[in-house]
Amino acid sequence: MLRGADLVLTMDPEVGAGELGTLEGGVDVLMRDGTIAAVGRGLAVPPGARVVDAGGKLVLPGFVDLHNHLWQSSIRGGCSAQDVNGWLAACNRANLPKIDAQDMYRFVHLAALDALQTGVTTVVDWVHPVPYGTTERYVRALDDAGLRFVYAMAQSSADRALVPRAKKELLDPLPLASLQVAVHAEMSTVKHLRLLYETARDLGVMLNSHVLEQRDDRKDDPIRALRTVGAFGPGLLMNHAVHLTDDEIALTGEHDVRVAHCPLSNMRLASGIAPLPALHRRGVRAGLGHDGGTNDTSDMFGLMKAAVGLQRARHEDAAVHPTIPAVLRMATLGGAECVGMADRIGSLTPGKRADVIVLDPGTLNFAPRFDWTSQIVLNGQPPNVSDVFVDGHVRKSRGELVHVDTARVVREAERAAAHLRAAA
Amino acid sequence: MLRGADLVLTMDPEVGAGELGTLEGGVDVLMRDGTIAAVGRGLAVPPGARVVDAGGKLVLPGFVDLHNHLWQSSIRGGCSAQDVNGWLAACNRANLPKIDAQDMYRFVHLAALDALQTGVTTVVDWVHPVPYGTTERYVRALDDAGLRFVYAMAQSSADRALVPRAKKELLDPLPLASLQVAVHAEMSTVKHLRLLYETARDLGVMLNSHVLEQRDDRKDDPIRALRTVGAFGPGLLMNHAVHLTDDEIALTGEHDVRVAHCPLSNMRLASGIAPLPALHRRGVRAGLGHDGGTNDTSDMFGLMKAAVGLQRARHEDAAVHPTIPAVLRMATLGGAECVGMADRIGSLTPGKRADVIVLDPGTLNFAPRFDWTSQIVLNGQPPNVSDVFVDGHVRKSRGELVHVDTARVVREAERAAAHLRAAA
Repeated sequence: MLRGADLVLTMDPEVGAGELGTLEGGVDVLMRDGTIAAVGRGLAVPPGARVVDAGGKLVLPGFVDLHNHLWQSSIRGGCSAQDVNGWLAACNRANLPKIDAQDMYRFVHLAALDALQTGVTTVVDWVHPVPYGTTERYVRALDDAGLRFVYAMAQSSADRALVPRAKKELLDPLPLASLQVAVHAEMSTVKHLRLLYETARDLGVMLNSHVLEQRDDRKDDPIRALRTVGAFGPGLLMNHAVHLTDDEIALTGEHDVRVAHCPLSNMRLASGIAPLPALHRRGVRAGLGHDGGTNDTSDMFGLMKAAVGLQRARHEDAAVHPTIPAVLRMATLGGAECVGMADRIGSLTPGKRADVIVLDPGTLNFAPRFDWTSQIVLNGQPPNVSDVFVDGHVRKSRGELVHVDTARVVREAERAAAHLRAAA
Repeated sequence: MLRGADLVLTMDPEVGAGELGTLEGGVDVLMRDGTIAAVGRGLAVPPGARVVDAGGKLVLPGFVDLHNHLWQSSIRGGCSAQDVNGWLAACNRANLPKIDAQDMYRFVHLAALDALQTGVTTVVDWVHPVPYGTTERYVRALDDAGLRFVYAMAQSSADRALVPRAKKELLDPLPLASLQVAVHAEMSTVKHLRLLYETARDLGVMLNSHVLEQRDDRKDDPIRALRTVGAFGPGLLMNHAVHLTDDEIALTGEHDVRVAHCPLSNMRLASGIAPLPALHRRGVRAGLGHDGGTNDTSDMFGLMKAAVGLQRARHEDAAVHPTIPAVLRMATLGGAECVGMADRIGSLTPGKRADVIVLDPGTLNFAPRFDWTSQIVLNGQPPNVSDVFVDGHVRKSRGELVHVDTARVVREAERAAAHLRAAA
């Protein structure tokens, strides 16, 4: 039981006040058997319950990172004077084949723990094609990190049989894991796209595609490709969606296609400014993604701040979407909705899985209290995340990851990085 | 002596390689009597020297925060759905008069320490008009925080005699303090501006003005006002400069006027996107500013990343100014140049004052090594700042501020915040 929090944003308007479901002053959050059992003031402490004092603290659902490539911790800071194409050629494609299964584990484990410490309890990882043995180690690294994850698996259509195999052998046995099929939709390879979409549909999982990240992607006509194969619907998550036309924005809303917005990546890779306000007006569900090595570091607070600020600076309008409450919702429940998991995570609704984070506002960068809800977005930094629970398990406590020797993880990643340099 | 750093960015091309004056592998930095005495490999350890092991670490000059209003830690997260005008009315002007001298000390002390812990060793603080007794406490809070500061003092022209008085009584006795005269340049009050400019000129200090932060400021015609009184020259620092015309950009370069760029504030307050590439083409010297409460938290890494990413997203060009090296220079030597202090700070040049920071890259958010110089900007977070030296004095060591009880500072600021709420 988290006892006596000063502010709880449940994200459920039926549990608390307003659009963020806010509860204030001495609020308890009771977790039991990995679920949220109750949220409210003055809850009775069940016999044998472990009580964590949350006095002076803020509590919210864990963050959902809707788009990442965790293996890219191998190329942090890399090709930093390049746009998407240059970076893909010189850093991404040049390095991936040099990473063996063991080093893949090291890079992914480090990056997953980095995400966890900034309060990410669910990550959607779009994984470039790797050998099956590497897939096994990649999944192991994610599971060992202890967060909930969606493994979006990219394969050539020739190798698509590996997808159900990975699902059955690697992911289904893990309670925190699930699968998506990852693609780059293009008209020129629409036959390939169709086969992979059918694989996703047959498995009952979502399709996850990069779409119009940069202006130049127009030549691929990805929306037409996705519509052609029948994938353009609520079972589709589109990443970036920076350069949609007005018609495509309308279609995205009509077909309930979901969008992962990655503002820090779009800034770093010079991709452009996504039409988030227009998508919102059309009712499109959207969440936030760090986007792996291209965003380089995990900081959900910086990511929320960028999502708000980028639109404000562009439109010179402080009321433009996303507002502060809207971006908090995008980072939690909105992300869960985008991957069809809002029945299980994304809000502190009794019965949902207990993915919960506690923020300590008593620091030089966050205090004093003036408007705490806004301060989460505008003042928060990863060290403010004092506690993280995933599926009811403690992963971070008093500001430290509890289940891992982080110094060792860093050393192992440096060892892998040395291999990569030696292979250059 | 800092012993054996893996990477030192001296910012002096005569000390190291390239535009950032880079030295790699076992580099020592010797400080003596508050100055940089020597930088290089294998320096002899002077008898009695205190040796700090910098093996595996990165060393650079302390950051210069070119524009801040530290008292605004009192209104963190405040009026977060408002643009500049709305925020000024509802948060800034509404709260400043309610803060007494004692509470001002508390707010400023907290914010100055927050800046220090992210590696800011020099801050330029544009301070709204306050009673002289409050000025005394404000200056005391800055000095107690232990960083170098430029107190940009705003007064009505009627009270301008307080400026030389504050200089003589409060600032001149402090080795880390200096003065500027702070104004809002407007044609409608050009007589007032002239008197304050003359005050600055007579004292031999710079004039520091907000200029065209938002589109609506055009009506004030601030550039004409500054030119009318003769202030438009190297003795002028303009903050924001978001909405300059092409002609004004050219004039800014021709007259060697300096610019404080505040991207996170411009994003938060919906001010717009400053024409940084055009200013650079015209040879304008510019640095970076957090801009106080409007940017809410101190994170020089997030600020550098925003400066780079905002231009890249706008121009869809990864080569646009500022590049990664350019933004590192802006955050250090560039800022020092803007306030005429580059003879004393901003680079690790022997003879300059010893404002030095050490970064620890061995963390989940920063490791492993791939391109460390880019990782400073793209992966750095305030906790990576392990050591901070100001004028040769240790202020942060092994990640902790050493000269202050931060928990007490937070408690004191919360006490002041409670007074502010009670006065509402």
